[in-house]
Amino acid sequence: MFFASDNSGPAHGAILDALAQANQGFAMPYGSDKIMDEVRAQVRDLFEAPEAAVYLVATGTAANSLALASYCQPYETVFCSAVAHIHEDECNAPEFYSGGAKLTLVGQEDKMTTDALRASIAKEETRGVHGPQRGAVSITQVTERGSVYSLDELKALTAVAKEFDLPVHLDGARFANAVVSLGCTPAEMTWKAGVDVVSFGGTKNGCIGVEAVVLFDPKKAWEFELRRKRGAHLFSKHRYLSAQMQAYLSDELWLKSAKQANANCERLSSGLRAIESVSFVHEPQANMIFCAFPRATHQRLHDAGALYYVWSGSLEGDDPTETLEARLVCDWSISHADIDQFLDLVRG
Amino acid sequence: MFFASDNSGPAHGAILDALAQANQGFAMPYGSDKIMDEVRAQVRDLFEAPEAAVYLVATGTAANSLALASYCQPYETVFCSAVAHIHEDECNAPEFYSGGAKLTLVGQEDKMTTDALRASIAKEETRGVHGPQRGAVSITQVTERGSVYSLDELKALTAVAKEFDLPVHLDGARFANAVVSLGCTPAEMTWKAGVDVVSFGGTKNGCIGVEAVVLFDPKKAWEFELRRKRGAHLFSKHRYLSAQMQAYLSDELWLKSAKQANANCERLSSGLRAIESVSFVHEPQANMIFCAFPRATHQRLHDAGALYYVWSGSLEGDDPTETLEARLVCDWSISHADIDQFLDLVRG
Amino acid sequence: MFFASDNSGPAHGAILDALAQANQGFAMPYGSDKIMDEVRAQVRDLFEAPEAAVYLVATGTAANSLALASYCQPYETVFCSAVAHIHEDECNAPEFYSGGAKLTLVGQEDKMTTDALRASIAKEETRGVHGPQRGAVSITQVTERGSVYSLDELKALTAVAKEFDLPVHLDGARFANAVVSLGCTPAEMTWKAGVDVVSFGGTKNGCIGVEAVVLFDPKKAWEFELRRKRGAHLFSKHRYLSAQMQAYLSDELWLKSAKQANANCERLSSGLRAIESVSFVHEPQANMIFCAFPRATHQRLHDAGALYYVWSGSLEGDDPTETLEARLVCDWSISHADIDQFLDLVRG
Amino acid sequence: MFFASDNSGPAHGAILDALAQANQGFAMPYGSDKIMDEVRAQVRDLFEAPEAAVYLVATGTAANSLALASYCQPYETVFCSAVAHIHEDECNAPEFYSGGAKLTLVGQEDKMTTDALRASIAKEETRGVHGPQRGAVSITQVTERGSVYSLDELKALTAVAKEFDLPVHLDGARFANAVVSLGCTPAEMTWKAGVDVVSFGGTKNGCIGVEAVVLFDPKKAWEFELRRKRGAHLFSKHRYLSAQMQAYLSDELWLKSAKQANANCERLSSGLRAIESVSFVHEPQANMIFCAFPRATHQRLHDAGALYYVWSGSLEGDDPTETLEARLVCDWSISHADIDQFLDLVRG
Repeated sequence: MFFASDNSGPAHGAILDALAQANQGFAMPYGSDKIMDEVRAQVRDLFEAPEAAVYLVATGTAANSLALASYCQPYETVFCSAVAHIHEDECNAPEFYSGGAKLTLVGQEDKMTTDALRASIAKEETRGVHGPQRGAVSITQVTERGSVYSLDELKALTAVAKEFDLPVHLDGARFANAVVSLGCTPAEMTWKAGVDVVSFGGTKNGCIGVEAVVLFDPKKAWEFELRRKRGAHLFSKHRYLSAQMQAYLSDELWLKSAKQANANCERLSSGLRAIESVSFVHEPQANMIFCAFPRATHQRLHDAGALYYVWSGSLEGDDPTETLEARLVCDWSISHADIDQFLDLVRG
Repeated sequence: MFFASDNSGPAHGAILDALAQANQGFAMPYGSDKIMDEVRAQVRDLFEAPEAAVYLVATGTAANSLALASYCQPYETVFCSAVAHIHEDECNAPEFYSGGAKLTLVGQEDKMTTDALRASIAKEETRGVHGPQRGAVSITQVTERGSVYSLDELKALTAVAKEFDLPVHLDGARFANAVVSLGCTPAEMTWKAGVDVVSFGGTKNGCIGVEAVVLFDPKKAWEFELRRKRGAHLFSKHRYLSAQMQAYLSDELWLKSAKQANANCERLSSGLRAIESVSFVHEPQANMIFCAFPRATHQRLHDAGALYYVWSGSLEGDDPTETLEARLVCDWSISHADIDQFLDLVRG
Repeated sequence: MFFASDNSGPAHGAILDALAQANQGFAMPYGSDKIMDEVRAQVRDLFEAPEAAVYLVATGTAANSLALASYCQPYETVFCSAVAHIHEDECNAPEFYSGGAKLTLVGQEDKMTTDALRASIAKEETRGVHGPQRGAVSITQVTERGSVYSLDELKALTAVAKEFDLPVHLDGARFANAVVSLGCTPAEMTWKAGVDVVSFGGTKNGCIGVEAVVLFDPKKAWEFELRRKRGAHLFSKHRYLSAQMQAYLSDELWLKSAKQANANCERLSSGLRAIESVSFVHEPQANMIFCAFPRATHQRLHDAGALYYVWSGSLEGDDPTETLEARLVCDWSISHADIDQFLDLVRG
Repeated sequence: MFFASDNSGPAHGAILDALAQANQGFAMPYGSDKIMDEVRAQVRDLFEAPEAAVYLVATGTAANSLALASYCQPYETVFCSAVAHIHEDECNAPEFYSGGAKLTLVGQEDKMTTDALRASIAKEETRGVHGPQRGAVSITQVTERGSVYSLDELKALTAVAKEFDLPVHLDGARFANAVVSLGCTPAEMTWKAGVDVVSFGGTKNGCIGVEAVVLFDPKKAWEFELRRKRGAHLFSKHRYLSAQMQAYLSDELWLKSAKQANANCERLSSGLRAIESVSFVHEPQANMIFCAFPRATHQRLHDAGALYYVWSGSLEGDDPTETLEARLVCDWSISHADIDQFLDLVRG
């Protein structure tokens, strides 16, 4: 019963197979491998963006930091959610890669609203040379609390950015889960909605460790390559990144995997919804559930070996009826048996 | 006939097998996986350093840059060879990770001498607060030109560093090839010789992409962890790094692989040595050969599909007798047939 | 009628005289001038800190950024007010000097409270290596809104910092105005209250451009010197910085000047308080007033040549009765006549 | 007898007078003062560059670092002399301000030659994404050893830069001394010779502390302003920088002062040239002399209170006949009496 994160499950067999298949003889290093040529074509097809620059890195933080650094100056500020991964979970990597840019937190909620975004952007640069200058807007899709921006919401946010002539980054660590949730195409969720650069995640969706950065403006390509190398994220034996991404994009593995994860989440949330002692903190829209239930239930789950984060409050405490929040992340690989056992334990 | 680099060959089957084996169920992320516990013990045993802090990253540039950044300040200068990888081939990554430290090139040769090192160090800080301050000494073993510092040479260099109270970094991208060449132990080539922190390479010796950073002073551990995360080099699905290193260190795979590479190099260099038109630019001591022979021979090799770098001079040119330098790197995976075919072609 | 800022008034005659007097013959450069020896002694006496390291720079932003950089790591976050100068008015200089550290905004008010500070600090590092680490606490005294922390408030804030073992920086761009307001000694407002490093401002209080950085822990001295030089803030003809500070600290000029500025503020605020249409947004405690009055009054003032910032709202607008906020900063050099004319204009 | 540096003499009376005159009433801060409007016009006139962007800072290191940072990327390398101030005497400030760019040392001499420059530039980027990219060329005029590039030499160097499409920076800490030496105009020595951005020094030529940065391409202006602010080099009471530069450029003070310094140097070098025991290491062309004479002479000078750097070798030593090198810098303010006394002492 592992619901702690989708960064802890196994990789798909097809990913491992692809590595094995790639492991034949010599291959040109540093992204000049033939598999990467295929990957580039696959990604451009997928995004309906024949000119896009496509690069692979091994971590989501690298994808985000390099994408942002290519689109912002050290004297600027990036606008993002108060709970964005780039703010809370990357140990100042965006500040590092951008040379010391600032992050401005838009509102206090998980999802940015157009009003809050416009207010945040408008507030900056009222001080001329003294304050940080307006920089990129970074949107997380799926959000950190398991919500999904609708296409209209996305477009409304990017429209605000464009009002101020600012570029837009999409942190798509769970890109596939969002596409499945919205039933849209990758193009609709990105450049057609006003996004300039995407972190297209693979790691959390059944890969070993690979993320694509897709820059819709190919003029940014060379700068990105130099920043990737300077950040020590250019792999010599690049074919093993390529192979993962190739397999991920073949036979719709990326979609199937996300569908499975979202379906697991749906199974779990449906079950929880029927349990009176459980309340939902956010409406689950992809593969993450934030819900609250009594401490006693948490303790029962933990005693039975369930692994997940108690998101607010502490497992320790006297009052067994106090409700504590759980974050439950559904990996593609979680079994129905595990979900059902978890639900049984919650039911008590 | 691929002699371009040891970063382009396939990984050992055992490495692939280890990935497959690691790919079972859930595993704690970010280096908390159980395989990493084994790896930590393996590395400490290997280095006879029970207190050492041990971390994994995926690229050699990351290993070097993070190691150096943990041992130097932004107002310092690192001392290294004029042809060091950290200077020539990392696109300012050491400068980036250190926050803008400088690299001082020691002499103009591949190998640093104690005289040149002492002179370089002595020269800095004669300007007080105005010049960069003396920082770490970085030694590359195997060097960029295929040479190997003897243990005495290493000790003499680190002794100079210690005179000035400076820490010593060893760039061991080809650590195993050096150990095989010297017939010494990892401890003898590192902390027993005065080295403080090592980049222990796996990638160029048959892994997919993994390097260990070994810090003999465990007080540096937490800072290193923070810098690794901030550099976006902390893998969520860390078990796949761990698995590579575990397999690499099991059954002496790391040693066997390096022995094979060095033996390949010996086979090739012995053959070349017997050919009159070939002269050696550096004495090959590990798995790299720098030698010169006529343009016509180069052209014959290239026409036959041999891949390697023409290191000085150009393949194009009128004079077929002009000698051009070749860099020939022998991967563990090169076949005897390829070596012998190469030699036949050189013989003409 | 210039109430726009205390960075726009003339310097005291004594400061100019000191420059002229210092302008004799040769003087050792880079802070080795004899006047600096006196300044060092003066500052140590003033702060009752015989061991303190004392340095001069020419701008408040340099003082703050260098002080913070000496006390925080690039993977940390500095805690400060949401309206702190280091956050809003230094164009990412603290991020630049610290190598990319973050600023965490404590609450949404001008003054930090212990509760908000404790909550902010406590929240960080619940994510281990993933989030920024807890760094220095920076307190602005006088605050950006003209308030002054009492000694008890200061001690309570620094006590929270010390709970978490964090260093404390005091941004004292208006240090003298605060000392006058509290009637305390510099020592009481700094190290006796738990402050580790101070930006002791001169520029806004009648100097040309000089700020002292006082580090109570002399072990930080050399690092500070190197960071100052690397930041290009070490003056060759340093004697002209020294001379300013020497004159500023002689004959209690620094205190007299601040008394004059605060008295000007008192005269203006007393007058305003008696006018029914004026309301105070913050209680003026030093030399700044934030108050609101009708647009028509603002227009009358501007037409008459009064210079100050309309802090919220816009001078343009249809409704003459709408109240707009003014920021009125009283320099030492403002004449009673100007103050009285201003009051007359407000009275209408 | 102070020949240690031209950073240690007094400022011209006219500079002090200008400060006093500027010290009247309120003035707009941050470079919006009226004196700066005059200075901008003066500098544009002087350089025959009506569109140039003109900014003031207080130190030469700030001028150089900000100028370079505005013209180079963090993944690039700047080409400069092996003894350039930006390399040896700025404690990594250029690396800091550029975000970690590298400096490539061109040759081993004081003056760069076109051959050495072309070779250095050509060598970079033979490694594609792996090595640092070619960045700006920085030329020091007057050089660190007191030499002056002729206009033809300057043009030849900038022509090499332009071959590779690289921008050119001129470090003119002693700009005026070079103009006097060459008998040319500022325009001839800068944009007419292919220079893109100049550090136009005032500090070493009789100011208190002021340098102009002149960017001939006004499109660089805003970025420069932001970098200056972020570097904490934007002065609030900017009028006192403006006033220095205004006085410096009025009545040809800048030229007169440099003529005086160069004439002092000529008087000293003529005298030295007539003394048999003195040999010149470099031909003095501006206001600096590098010459060698016996230790006994050095000791006599030091005993008599002469201050200058013994540039190579040490004053301590047994052999009174050993020749040691002296660096003698002639400030505008040195008296003929001091020069003559110095010569008398050398004569023995």
